[in-house]
Amino acid sequence: MTYTLVLLRHGESEWNAKNLFTGWVDVPLSEKGIEEARRGGTLLTDADVHPDVVHTSLLRRAITTANLALDAAERHWIPVKRSWRLNERHYGALQGKDKKQTLAEFGEEQFMLWRRSYDTPPPEIELGSEYSQDADPRYADAPVVRTECLKDVLERALPYWDAEIVPDLQAGKTVLVAAHGNSLRAIIKYLDDIDDETIAGLNVPTGIPLRYELDEETLKPVTRGGTYLDPDAAAAAIQAVANQGR
Amino acid sequence: MTYTLVLLRHGESEWNAKNLFTGWVDVPLSEKGIEEARRGGTLLTDADVHPDVVHTSLLRRAITTANLALDAAERHWIPVKRSWRLNERHYGALQGKDKKQTLAEFGEEQFMLWRRSYDTPPPEIELGSEYSQDADPRYADAPVVRTECLKDVLERALPYWDAEIVPDLQAGKTVLVAAHGNSLRAIIKYLDDIDDETIAGLNVPTGIPLRYELDEETLKPVTRGGTYLDPDAAAAAIQAVANQGR
Repeated sequence: MTYTLVLLRHGESEWNAKNLFTGWVDVPLSEKGIEEARRGGTLLTDADVHPDVVHTSLLRRAITTANLALDAAERHWIPVKRSWRLNERHYGALQGKDKKQTLAEFGEEQFMLWRRSYDTPPPEIELGSEYSQDADPRYADAPVVRTECLKDVLERALPYWDAEIVPDLQAGKTVLVAAHGNSLRAIIKYLDDIDDETIAGLNVPTGIPLRYELDEETLKPVTRGGTYLDPDAAAAAIQAVANQGR
Repeated sequence: MTYTLVLLRHGESEWNAKNLFTGWVDVPLSEKGIEEARRGGTLLTDADVHPDVVHTSLLRRAITTANLALDAAERHWIPVKRSWRLNERHYGALQGKDKKQTLAEFGEEQFMLWRRSYDTPPPEIELGSEYSQDADPRYADAPVVRTECLKDVLERALPYWDAEIVPDLQAGKTVLVAAHGNSLRAIIKYLDDIDDETIAGLNVPTGIPLRYELDEETLKPVTRGGTYLDPDAAAAAIQAVANQGR
């Protein structure tokens, strides 16, 4: 027997469309993102995948994606759990900044280090500044986060995986995780045992459910990398994500 | 100290607009209903009411209303709990039927008995028929329901009130309940100690949050009937609901 886990990266947000670093800034989906989310739900139905529970971050682009996808899949009524531990990576002082401008200002090497290195976080955001979340009531029970690298994301996501997601899987539930490029990369790194260098080249496309069957003993993937429910669209989108900021 | 409870009836659904008996049939909001839900969220913000947790039925018109209202109120990230015990009254064999036609077919007295009497349910729905939910996976853990009167709704809602809503209130949380005309009438009957005859005349308008402050000892309303966050619109809408089916 295997357990079924489905990872879904939110559809395009208004800031993806504007090419700004977003992180924990709580921007809505773009019109395209809304369509992507609905199509994600249709892909679930077409693949006969029926989530029994959904886990989301505390950010509306993931929450809305889950709402729209589940409504399209006739699974809007399932239990919902949310945690800041599934949030996008906190982009520190880069939050709100234009990606192209940042590339021009700091150069290719520094830019790619912040975007893709495993353990180099961007500079910390100033507390109380426009794009800091330190006073946001939704994070009242979370530590104050001022910047994160992917390693930080994995370290804060893993306790949630163990405490909340694994028990749902072990109860035999089909689990949907609606989250973000980097929180999903962190989970994938953990599941597929991807090393710190190789993970830099892994991109998760928006709006295309990624299905993993996990061994019931080891909770590791039966097929490494899982299966996108629309493999052709996923391959095309992965290429597009890799070109972001250029 | 008091506890804050907010009741929100879903916005207009596609079948409200078509004047059909809906019950447990899972129809979506109409465009007007979507706007009502968003406005409900704005009313929450304007009244400085910030839900800490939301309880919904398993029906998408209540779920979508909660999603849209909370997004508009910047509270989309709060915990969510759902139960069939907050569902609309099951309308039995009337589900899917035109209200005007039903009035013409059965006459004013029978029609009003089914619509408003406290303890007379409509005829039972045929299991396996188009508008029966007996095979719906979302009710796998619920008893099979074939029809309900308001008394039945109160009897199945009350265990949820006691087990799930009261503990949230007692934890000091502002609780939002996004539900339906009759599940909310049942809760209001209980809270305000309304007798079986008087409740027939009570209508809850769509999309206008109804705020109750509950005494911390008795869990009974400090002000009977609570306060609509838009009292003028509520008064006008209550009159319109009373005229339904005419």
